[in-house]
Amino acid sequence: MKLAIDAMGGDHAPKAIVEGAMEAINQIENLEITLVGDQAQIEPFLTNHNRIDILHTTEVITGDDEPVRAVRRKKNASMVLMANEVKEKRADACVSAGNTGALMSAGLFVVGRIPGIDRPALTPTFPTLDGKGFLMLDVGANVDAKPNHLVHYAIMGSIYAEKVRKINQPTVGLLNIGTEDGKGNDLTRRAFRKLQEAPIHFIGNVEARDLLDGVADVVVTDGFSGNIALKTIEGTAMSMFRMLKDVFLSSVKTKLAAGLMKNELKQLKAQLDYSEYGGAGLFGLKAPVIKAHGSSNSRAIVSAIEQACHMVEYRVTETIQSTVEQMQEQEENR
Amino acid sequence: MKLAIDAMGGDHAPKAIVEGAMEAINQIENLEITLVGDQAQIEPFLTNHNRIDILHTTEVITGDDEPVRAVRRKKNASMVLMANEVKEKRADACVSAGNTGALMSAGLFVVGRIPGIDRPALTPTFPTLDGKGFLMLDVGANVDAKPNHLVHYAIMGSIYAEKVRKINQPTVGLLNIGTEDGKGNDLTRRAFRKLQEAPIHFIGNVEARDLLDGVADVVVTDGFSGNIALKTIEGTAMSMFRMLKDVFLSSVKTKLAAGLMKNELKQLKAQLDYSEYGGAGLFGLKAPVIKAHGSSNSRAIVSAIEQACHMVEYRVTETIQSTVEQMQEQEENR
Repeated sequence: MKLAIDAMGGDHAPKAIVEGAMEAINQIENLEITLVGDQAQIEPFLTNHNRIDILHTTEVITGDDEPVRAVRRKKNASMVLMANEVKEKRADACVSAGNTGALMSAGLFVVGRIPGIDRPALTPTFPTLDGKGFLMLDVGANVDAKPNHLVHYAIMGSIYAEKVRKINQPTVGLLNIGTEDGKGNDLTRRAFRKLQEAPIHFIGNVEARDLLDGVADVVVTDGFSGNIALKTIEGTAMSMFRMLKDVFLSSVKTKLAAGLMKNELKQLKAQLDYSEYGGAGLFGLKAPVIKAHGSSNSRAIVSAIEQACHMVEYRVTETIQSTVEQMQEQEENR
Repeated sequence: MKLAIDAMGGDHAPKAIVEGAMEAINQIENLEITLVGDQAQIEPFLTNHNRIDILHTTEVITGDDEPVRAVRRKKNASMVLMANEVKEKRADACVSAGNTGALMSAGLFVVGRIPGIDRPALTPTFPTLDGKGFLMLDVGANVDAKPNHLVHYAIMGSIYAEKVRKINQPTVGLLNIGTEDGKGNDLTRRAFRKLQEAPIHFIGNVEARDLLDGVADVVVTDGFSGNIALKTIEGTAMSMFRMLKDVFLSSVKTKLAAGLMKNELKQLKAQLDYSEYGGAGLFGLKAPVIKAHGSSNSRAIVSAIEQACHMVEYRVTETIQSTVEQMQEQEENR
């Protein structure tokens, strides 16, 4: 199995990326990696060339670049060349911690969509209180979704949850503003009916307040609402940690209390850290494309590489494609 | 000034409502209250009849009732009769802690809309880290919003923030999935341009992760996304408190730490308790209609009553109406 990895994307590139790649090579048998980026910047960190080669380029897409334009114009950017390795079948999957919008564009325009899937979905795994986690899709690849898109998200999420996360008959919920049938806006009301007929284990509407309790294994929503939910979880958690920190620093007594439970607090923070769950998959493309968090350290890069490997190994893309084909045949035969 | 209050709505009705009403009478000069509900259930708690009368009815709308149908069929329900007091101008404003959907229906069908405002907006005040708080509208009165609705929300929120919350030139942000101009879905892109021309202090797009930092005094969004954000904040905060509780109970050492900072933790929880900020106003109706939280205690009821009084006193409804009329005239003169 071979992965192409954008060595230049993310806050700690290329160091964290190169170190993560070497670590992954040690852990995963038969894995080969092509690091795409500036050889002069990569080499100092690449202390072991075993099963790793470099595809050299000096062009990069930065966080400030306008995504679609950057992918179209910077044809030699590390991210674009990485996607091209997949397109040309020299790599089975790819990983980048760079500009999210640009990666979605590179996925769409270079790697390409699975026939029958209109819109790819950006799919992170969120932490839950029980440590099991859940998938949410879409969180921003496609901001004006149609009911049919949500059905595709449900199928893609289910297949990933079953094959990679090893959840038997994963439950799928529709993010909505109430749990009763018929609740919601025009999109969710129409999607609800279609989801009832889809080949998934649909459990109906789920509410945002129950997400972290693990109300469903897969939660589907349009990219706008999903992005709002994602960022609200992040923002609320960060704000609360900050408030907690202020409380702990407010007096001698509270500082003492903080000292007593230092390890537990660290653990609590780790429990909510979704980089532990790998990156966000861009589902619906012809090969696995993984977006690692921008602030990824080498450990997070290893997780993202493992995730890409699992998607290849368990044939997630092929299963999505054959499931969608079957659905289309069934519809035509009706 | 006279308020009509639904004595039968909410988890702690009628006790908390009646006690809150008596407390408000003590605090607010010239306030008169009509408690609408079952006299036999109200009287035991009504230890002081000063400036409080009872409009007797035994019918109630429950949390399980389908909102629109309940308001249409249960014509003698306490909530409907309460709204009717406002419609018939026997009361200046009304407060209920009952079924939110039913209150929105009663507001719409009984109290009626301000001419020129197509859709009322449910508008809670959220806590922020600095204790200032911000308004978000809409959080669910209208789930399929149009750009024009968001402009009306911005105007209504600004007027309330200025008149009642005494914020000079309140900032208005559009909830979006990125801060750059041109970001978002079809609705937010179109609303953005209209908001730039509206008579408000528009500061552009704001992201969900910055809400609790007080990124704007007024945040406008469609009812679906607003509801998702509201419930995600609630859910994340609750989940984190639960995790924190588990941590505190996990060992003798952490129990000791918890004991050391008991008061501080209580304060932290209170800081995030938005019932402290009064109820959620249903803006855009011909008179102030306040939705108090379903779990309101008497203190929360007093806050909601104060809020209703302020809206009457500072002529929020009249100002919204005249502002919308001016806008329409300007548009016609173009």
